[in-house]
Parts: sequence; C-alpha cells; structure tokens
Amino acid sequence: MKLLVVGSVAFDAIETPFGKTDKILGGAATYIGLAASLMKVKSGIVSVVGGDFPDTYMNLLQSRGVNTEGIEVIADGKTFFWSGKYHNDLNSRDTLVTEVNVLENFDPKIPASMEDAEVLLLGNLHPGVQLSVLEKMKNRPKLVILDTMNFWMDSAMEILMQMIAKTDVITINDEEARQLSGEYSLVKAAKKIHAMGPAFVIIKKGEHGALLFHDDRIFAIPAMPLEEVFDPTGAGDTFAGGFASYLVKKGKFDFETMKSALIAGSALASFTVEKFGTERLQEITEVELGERILQFKELTTFETEV
Amino acid sequence: MKLLVVGSVAFDAIETPFGKTDKILGGAATYIGLAASLMKVKSGIVSVVGGDFPDTYMNLLQSRGVNTEGIEVIADGKTFFWSGKYHNDLNSRDTLVTEVNVLENFDPKIPASMEDAEVLLLGNLHPGVQLSVLEKMKNRPKLVILDTMNFWMDSAMEILMQMIAKTDVITINDEEARQLSGEYSLVKAAKKIHAMGPAFVIIKKGEHGALLFHDDRIFAIPAMPLEEVFDPTGAGDTFAGGFASYLVKKGKFDFETMKSALIAGSALASFTVEKFGTERLQEITEVELGERILQFKELTTFETEV
Repeated sequence: MKLLVVGSVAFDAIETPFGKTDKILGGAATYIGLAASLMKVKSGIVSVVGGDFPDTYMNLLQSRGVNTEGIEVIADGKTFFWSGKYHNDLNSRDTLVTEVNVLENFDPKIPASMEDAEVLLLGNLHPGVQLSVLEKMKNRPKLVILDTMNFWMDSAMEILMQMIAKTDVITINDEEARQLSGEYSLVKAAKKIHAMGPAFVIIKKGEHGALLFHDDRIFAIPAMPLEEVFDPTGAGDTFAGGFASYLVKKGKFDFETMKSALIAGSALASFTVEKFGTERLQEITEVELGERILQFKELTTFETEV
Repeated sequence: MKLLVVGSVAFDAIETPFGKTDKILGGAATYIGLAASLMKVKSGIVSVVGGDFPDTYMNLLQSRGVNTEGIEVIADGKTFFWSGKYHNDLNSRDTLVTEVNVLENFDPKIPASMEDAEVLLLGNLHPGVQLSVLEKMKNRPKLVILDTMNFWMDSAMEILMQMIAKTDVITINDEEARQLSGEYSLVKAAKKIHAMGPAFVIIKKGEHGALLFHDDRIFAIPAMPLEEVFDPTGAGDTFAGGFASYLVKKGKFDFETMKSALIAGSALASFTVEKFGTERLQEITEVELGERILQFKELTTFETEV
C-alpha cells in the first residue's frame, strides 16, 4: 500500500521561550512525509514550492524515500512562509507572518506513480484544494483522512463541509471540534461531526492526548508526559502522519487497528516537540522509536484486574 | 484491612448551568465514605458536625456500613457550609459562601475501633488537623494518602510541608502541582513533590484524567468522556475514595496495584458528576459499577501490536 500526502512544504521561523530559528524546513506534508519514512511506509507528497526552496531540503525528503514527483517547483515563485511565537506555556502562540506565496494559486497535480494510492491524507490546506485532489485520484482511495483547522471554518466553511462529507477519518483539535459542532461536550461534538460524514472522528487534545470516536465506541490515549516541550510546531501533522502510516503498514482500517495507529502517531509526535521544527524527526533511530512505543505501552497498560 | 477517613462532613449548596440545590449533604469525607461503601471496604470517618446535621444523613452513612463513631456532634454548633456556582464550562467556579463553623476548632478524635486502620486517607482539610490525626494513630498506618488544595498552600504552607513529608501518596490537581513545585512541566513538578516526601504522586487533571508518578515510572489514565457533566462537586473526593478503597481491598500498595486503583477511582468519580452532590453515588448498583469499569477498560485498552 502507498500513502499519498497533500499539504504544505514550507519555511517556518519559530520562536519559543527556549530560543528562535531562522527560516527552517516546515509544512504539514514535510512532517507527514518524515513520519511515513520512520514508519517505513511508501509515501508521496503533492505540494508546491518556489524557486527559493533549497535542493538540500528536497534531497532530504528523497533520501528518506518520500516520492517528491508531486512537489511542483515554481521557479519564479516564493515558498509558503509562516512565522510564529509561542507563549510561555507553549499551549498558545501568535502568528507573526504568513506569506502564502505559491500556495495562493496551488493547482495540485498527482503524479502517475501515486494515482492509485490506497490511503489519502489531506494535510491542513484550503479545503477546496483538498477536495480537488480527491477528485483527481484515479480511483477513490480506500481511506481518506482529513486534517483541518479553525482558520478554514472561519473562511471557507461551505467547501469545508463538502470536503468533510467525503472524509472517512477527520482529525481536529478539541476547540475546533467544539467550533465545528457547536457542542461543548466532546462526546456530543463527535456525534455531530460523525453525522457530517466521517465514520471516524479523532479529537486531538495536545498535552492531554487524543480521543477516537466510532459509532458508540470511544478510545482515549494520553500524550507522553515530557520533562520539556521545546517546540510544538508540527506535532499535529506528525501525529496524523504516524497514524496514517500505521494503517498503510497494516493494510487495515478497523477500529482496533486505529487504536494502535493512535499510539504510533502519538509516539512520533512526542519526538517532534523535543527540538525545533523537524530536527528531532530527522535524527530518530529505529531503536529510539521502538523504545518510545514501549514507554507508551507502560504509560497506559494495567495488568491487575480492577 | 480498614480505611480511616478524615475530612469534612458538610452542607453544600450548588449552582450549575443545569440547576441549583438547597443545602444538601456534602463534604470530602462523605464522598469518600460512600465510595468505600461501593467498593465494599470497611471505613470509618473522623469529622465534626453541628446540632443542625440531620439524623437522616448520619443514618445514610451508617446504612452504607460507614463507621460514624468518629463523627463528633457539637450540639450547639453549626455544620460546615459551602456554596458555589459553576461557570458554563464547569471547569471553574466561584465560591459564594464558606461558613467554617464547627470545623474552626476541630479537634479530631479517633474511635478505638479505628485506631489500627492500615490505610489513612486524609481528605482535604487544614494540614494541621491532618497531621494531628496521623500523630494520634496507635501505629503509623501502612499507607498515608493525602488530598490537599491550593487554599492551604496559600494559608498554611509551613505545616502543609510537614504533612507532605509524612505522606506516602499525595493527590493534587495540575494547577496545584505547579503551584507547590514552581514547575510548569508536570513531570518536573512530580519529581520535586516526590522529593518533598511522597513516594507516589497523583496529579488530577479533571476531564483530562490523571497521572501517577513513582520513581521514574509514569502511568496515565483518561477520564471517562461523558455526554454531560452535570455537577463536578465531589469528583476529586470520590476519586481519592475509590483509589484508597481499591488498595484496602487488595491489601497491596505497589505501583501495579495503584494503576488499577486509579481506574476504580476514576470510574466512581465519573458517576459523581452525573447528578447533584452525592445523589448519583447513592443510587449506583453493583452492576452499574461493573459496567463502568468495563467501559473504562474498553476506553484505554488496545490489542493490536504497535
């Protein structure tokens, strides 16, 4: 099986209480591609960058086995750029700069080698672009996973609802789930979102973990408690990437498999926040990933009969 | 084994977005005693009430098998009274009235029948009172569990620190853990609190569950996602009561047993919030409790190898 990823490949400049970066590699699809690579899953990215996007970054993705044929380079354009500053608690941030650049008129093109991907992960982007990718697929993928955010609820709700209606699994955070559903209770929110289309609803709660809803079933996982969260940028994308990659690897999309996929996604995301940007994701070894997943099991598993 | 509980037996008047109550039965020790009763554990309460405390309430506790010999009745005194109003999200509340009354000069007396209790649960009260109970025990109990809150950190820090130094298990919420330790990261906070005395640190995160820390080990449980939280009053006390009662029942105080004790405590607390005050705790059947614990396992257990 293969994973087709649509999302931004971008520059980020990040400031946290622990330091700041110049323009570094970022973008939802970048984090997802690196997560897929760590899960040893074949993936390809559909995105667009400008002539200013360095070969070293493109080579990095390729060296990790990510198919970059679908990343269009617009020679006289500039790559999407985001800059943000996190507050002291790292739970909130201010956006300092958003330069949409080549993403403004992004017309996604799916390379022939990825047209038959079985799993499509629509990373955070304009829902119109997400929808157009789904429509351009040779066949409807076996599983469509959608990541989105409040920005599109505010600015493109109608087309976002069309996109959600065609989605199998949606991942959003708790505040976004409340905004989308108009319900404060996450159980009620998930039911309403379920009725909008997705058979599976994943609500991300950051440092508090995540919830998976399917029919009347609920699965909850905590986040890995960390001594220090250094930079939360990309944690949600990494989570989605790890989740999708696990499903591709297993070739199954049932509730039980999705539970373990959540663990895989959370374990990977717990690395992302340990350093700036994709830095930590780039250096993780297979042994480290195995250890983290083991820690996750220890964190959540109890043996004694209650 | 027996559980000795020290804490308030009181009147509460509660207002939530869903309604309001007159003076009803409340108090930390009340919730804990009812939790112990549901866990079929022998418990006794040390507390004080006024002449205004109705026989029906005292009879209720006795009918549940709670030893009330240690609840002193001061005929010409008035029972502790708290009144509060919850905000719309139910995560925060305003205290409207606090009448300390007979708790002002509370001199706890341990009945002979409870002097040899193996587990002592010091419910939320002035730390000086908590400490005096520990000192009055015939033998040092095998396990001392302390529940406290930010109010005592602000008003009686020195004696609270003496109490914490003699504690085996402390349960506090996330904000209180941060206040007590001066650390934002809960992992770092738990380490500092560990160094103050308690071998086990439980951090309660309300709707986000709880964390158990012991040496370098961490266990995390989610809270049961509920369609509706009706009234959070007493949830933390019920949690502590269910946790302590499970340990008494098993007669073991190791990390593995404590994991399951957290599940028992969380399952019981998830009932408390479904109605006003102790109302729901009073009506739970054994079958319902068993079903809730099963739901908890389904909520947190994954089968597929990650």
